[in-house]
Amino acid sequence: MWDTPHHDGSATYVSDLTPDLGDEVSVFLRVPRASGVTQALLRSSIDGEQVLVETTVDRETDQEIWLRGDLVVENPVVSYRWLLDGVPHGYQWLNQAGAFQRDVTDAEDFRISTYAPPPAWAADAVLYQVFPDRFDKSVDRPAPDWAVPQAWDDPVVGSGPETPLQYYGGDLDGVRAHLDHIASLGANTVYLTPFFPARSNHRYDASTFDRVDPLLGGDSALARLADDVHRRGMRLMGDLTTNHCGDAHDWFQRALADATSPEAGYFVFTRHPDDYVCWFGYRSLPKFDHRDAGLRAALYEGPTSTVARWLGPSGLDGWRIDVANMTGRLGATDLNHEVATAIRATMAAADPDSLLLAEHSHDASHDLAGDGWHGVMNYAGFARPLWQWLKPPEEIRFEPGPFTPLPSFPGTAMVDTMRAFSAAQPWRATAHALNLVGSHDVPRIATFLGDDALVTVAFGLLASMPGIPMLWAGDEIGQKGTNGEDGRRPFPWHDTSQWDDRRLATTRALFGARADHAALRHGGLRWVNVAAGAVTFLREAPEGRVLVHAARSAHDVVRLPAAAFGRELVGIAGTEDVRADADGTLTLPDDGPRFSMWQPA
Amino acid sequence: MWDTPHHDGSATYVSDLTPDLGDEVSVFLRVPRASGVTQALLRSSIDGEQVLVETTVDRETDQEIWLRGDLVVENPVVSYRWLLDGVPHGYQWLNQAGAFQRDVTDAEDFRISTYAPPPAWAADAVLYQVFPDRFDKSVDRPAPDWAVPQAWDDPVVGSGPETPLQYYGGDLDGVRAHLDHIASLGANTVYLTPFFPARSNHRYDASTFDRVDPLLGGDSALARLADDVHRRGMRLMGDLTTNHCGDAHDWFQRALADATSPEAGYFVFTRHPDDYVCWFGYRSLPKFDHRDAGLRAALYEGPTSTVARWLGPSGLDGWRIDVANMTGRLGATDLNHEVATAIRATMAAADPDSLLLAEHSHDASHDLAGDGWHGVMNYAGFARPLWQWLKPPEEIRFEPGPFTPLPSFPGTAMVDTMRAFSAAQPWRATAHALNLVGSHDVPRIATFLGDDALVTVAFGLLASMPGIPMLWAGDEIGQKGTNGEDGRRPFPWHDTSQWDDRRLATTRALFGARADHAALRHGGLRWVNVAAGAVTFLREAPEGRVLVHAARSAHDVVRLPAAAFGRELVGIAGTEDVRADADGTLTLPDDGPRFSMWQPA
Repeated sequence: MWDTPHHDGSATYVSDLTPDLGDEVSVFLRVPRASGVTQALLRSSIDGEQVLVETTVDRETDQEIWLRGDLVVENPVVSYRWLLDGVPHGYQWLNQAGAFQRDVTDAEDFRISTYAPPPAWAADAVLYQVFPDRFDKSVDRPAPDWAVPQAWDDPVVGSGPETPLQYYGGDLDGVRAHLDHIASLGANTVYLTPFFPARSNHRYDASTFDRVDPLLGGDSALARLADDVHRRGMRLMGDLTTNHCGDAHDWFQRALADATSPEAGYFVFTRHPDDYVCWFGYRSLPKFDHRDAGLRAALYEGPTSTVARWLGPSGLDGWRIDVANMTGRLGATDLNHEVATAIRATMAAADPDSLLLAEHSHDASHDLAGDGWHGVMNYAGFARPLWQWLKPPEEIRFEPGPFTPLPSFPGTAMVDTMRAFSAAQPWRATAHALNLVGSHDVPRIATFLGDDALVTVAFGLLASMPGIPMLWAGDEIGQKGTNGEDGRRPFPWHDTSQWDDRRLATTRALFGARADHAALRHGGLRWVNVAAGAVTFLREAPEGRVLVHAARSAHDVVRLPAAAFGRELVGIAGTEDVRADADGTLTLPDDGPRFSMWQPA
Repeated sequence: MWDTPHHDGSATYVSDLTPDLGDEVSVFLRVPRASGVTQALLRSSIDGEQVLVETTVDRETDQEIWLRGDLVVENPVVSYRWLLDGVPHGYQWLNQAGAFQRDVTDAEDFRISTYAPPPAWAADAVLYQVFPDRFDKSVDRPAPDWAVPQAWDDPVVGSGPETPLQYYGGDLDGVRAHLDHIASLGANTVYLTPFFPARSNHRYDASTFDRVDPLLGGDSALARLADDVHRRGMRLMGDLTTNHCGDAHDWFQRALADATSPEAGYFVFTRHPDDYVCWFGYRSLPKFDHRDAGLRAALYEGPTSTVARWLGPSGLDGWRIDVANMTGRLGATDLNHEVATAIRATMAAADPDSLLLAEHSHDASHDLAGDGWHGVMNYAGFARPLWQWLKPPEEIRFEPGPFTPLPSFPGTAMVDTMRAFSAAQPWRATAHALNLVGSHDVPRIATFLGDDALVTVAFGLLASMPGIPMLWAGDEIGQKGTNGEDGRRPFPWHDTSQWDDRRLATTRALFGARADHAALRHGGLRWVNVAAGAVTFLREAPEGRVLVHAARSAHDVVRLPAAAFGRELVGIAGTEDVRADADGTLTLPDDGPRFSMWQPA
């Protein structure tokens, strides 16, 4: 595949990643001479009509011709694709999904956006997800009335009614105590699951958005944590439920008490006070009604809203929005886009350098034009296909949301899936997708894969693919868990005998490499070889490039020409160097599981 | 392909084609036993979240199992797909584009819509497109000042500045004189290109929307035509430019004369009065500004608007909207959806039985959710792939809009293209797409294909595929033309020696068959066999089914099992019967070009 024409939305291929309306942007097509392609047209859509322009040769080498097409960004988002000549039928469309010898719809076009880009720091961000009750505690506090108090070493139950009530007492000063550890992993952004008072250990059932849970140390603990994080040049993100709150929330209590209260309009009562719409039927999680101006003002419109007031130097650098896919959607009402753009606007006003990520387990492409969420949790386009490739052939049910079987698939299916989901959205959304191999909602990756070498492959792809990687606290020491709840085991700070030191070293090496190589952080993505047992790709940035080879198992050997990749591949993060033989052939390792990265000469 | 699971949006597979919000709808999956599929889940999206439900066996035969899934239509449009078990990896998604052994985005889901459906008559409609200046004239009238008068037999110039000025003087009474002819073709809906006064023979540069051009016989001629059309149970459609008008239009003249006039707001002046936005830079076609409330009221909002006032018993049954893809789109403004839904609402109020079709040459899927255009001109998903399959291998430039090369492609690429475009939109939009093999904007099909038998294949697919077929007046007698303008040659009513009588007979037979067989008018579409030289499909309705076989050339023989198709295929529209041999095999003709249709037993 390395010898086929390529384009993506990265800086190698687009002259201006943040154009304004009316700007001219040059886009470049890499045409390997081996492809046989002789010419290309650039096709864009302007005001709903097709515009086809010729391309010119920008530069050439022995190996490649670079064609340039120019387009004027006349609409907020301009979609485009390439029409290649010199192929069979003299006609092949190249879009984000690949090459097609037939006409294609616009769904998988490349896109240029004039919407304000995500903050620059996001391109280099590596998140570290902390579930505060289980990370570490700085002090013993009396357990609240709803809780079943636990000692730090008590086992989590993992299922049943007691699951959300087990209270271990982790707090924000407990997080603050481990910033060295977090930084040592190559992570630079602490993401806290909710810190508002609630009646569960997960706190997705907030009882107020006005203060930090005193059980976590209160507002002052958050300020201390934020200050320490920021002093290190790191970032801090929070987690907000915009779909619902807890039934103990001030707003809901006022709504229940008085059908004529302003807060009654925040919710969807079908019969006051007994019947109301809630998340998946859980009566403890009443759903918000975003048609209500009072709710919008309280939650996310304007500088005094919840969204705005927690941002800033002694607060957060961004939000992860919980159940974002369902937010504002109910029956005939779909205000999801309005909610997303309003949250974004409020954040931009409160802190122009803030990041907005959203929970989504499925196809979010329609919510990713660029004016709402900067990116979404990439279960669909990263985690699931990766799990499907690396999982053992036995069936294990492993799903982030409602039930779906999770089959074992070859690497070709993994890559086809990743391409299908990224092709449906702008490159900018792919580059800011929150990639993950685990979270507090799914089984621990170590348990799921059950093979150290496979976990390294998973971590390797997490560290090397486009997107914002998220490390789920504990995965770096090999913590176990058969489902999301079981995976929320307290972090064994006091007992390093429970730590998988090799996993920790591998994690540091992989994410250290990401920190060292701009290409891994914000390069493009060019597939080099894809097979059942191994996938190979290039990340390429103006600053350099990295060749990545991920193998699930022993596989057909992959040979690459030194003419295109250089006579020497210099190993990264522990990978051995590869040198071309006398014929000019580079031979990649053909065993597996194995994860390898090199810097081509 | 006949032995793979199938579902589409037609009545065979969906219990209620016009559900209301909150209704429960059953959807059915045809599972041939030969497919090996053992079970299926139904996956829908409700309020942005995935819902997976099990299916049950509704009924079974020796050959097939029919699975039923039930879903509640909780959102205005509910998208769904099937997850099949019993296939390799135990996991295969089936959506409108086909089957995928990997996860897929929602873009090609099946869809159920609660939006008001198109009028019932549209499902049975066959349009006959008339370009009034060239069809027939009832009386000689003095030529207008802008015109270059022509005798009926004078040749059209086909290109150059005189092209739009050649005036032949056809009129609406000329159309009225030939309703017998139109009906004899199997057409039941007369579609007139614009009839408003203008300064060109095509009249897409209207100088008013308030009256019918006196050169066409004026308002009374339209009323006479409408009355005669309606008396026959036929329908009449008009053609409206909502993107622009002519620079002689009353509104634009007032706008030019007075920058403070209400009409000045109807247009986009960059410097009054000299510079204004116009269609593709043609200064004679100033573009409308749909942000202006006055324009909206005048053009399409409310009962006195242009859109409303021409509908009704002595007027039109619907509109074809010109340049619909660009309407309301300009720079940072995109009001296209708002324009479409407003036109639709106005039409629904003025005449609930009216049809709204739109010009579009490309991917219109984002405009076809169901609340705006009922359907669009199907260049992208029907005409272009058909042309690509049937065209001679020599390169001929043949494009409806701005330049694209038109390669010669195999039947597999044609079908892949048709599936890609229909998969991106609801079945209802596919069933109401305006299919065509020619129009006033492209070369005549007889000239383009240059082979009678191939033209019959093109007409056969036009008569037999899902969508609303449009016959371009003159094609039924084999009129010629090398481009759109050259194809607008006057209809030679007076000289039948110029008529291709075999083409006329074939046209009548093919569209007569469509009138006779409900399956061809509103059945589903199931592909049976697709190859480079021939494609085979079934149209299936509760009333019966039709097997269609279209061959471009001699091809590998297609054999079908009598067990699934019956021992006898009864020929339709001149096709010979096919009987199964002793082994129970039906052998379809393997020569070509040939178009065949049968009624399976």
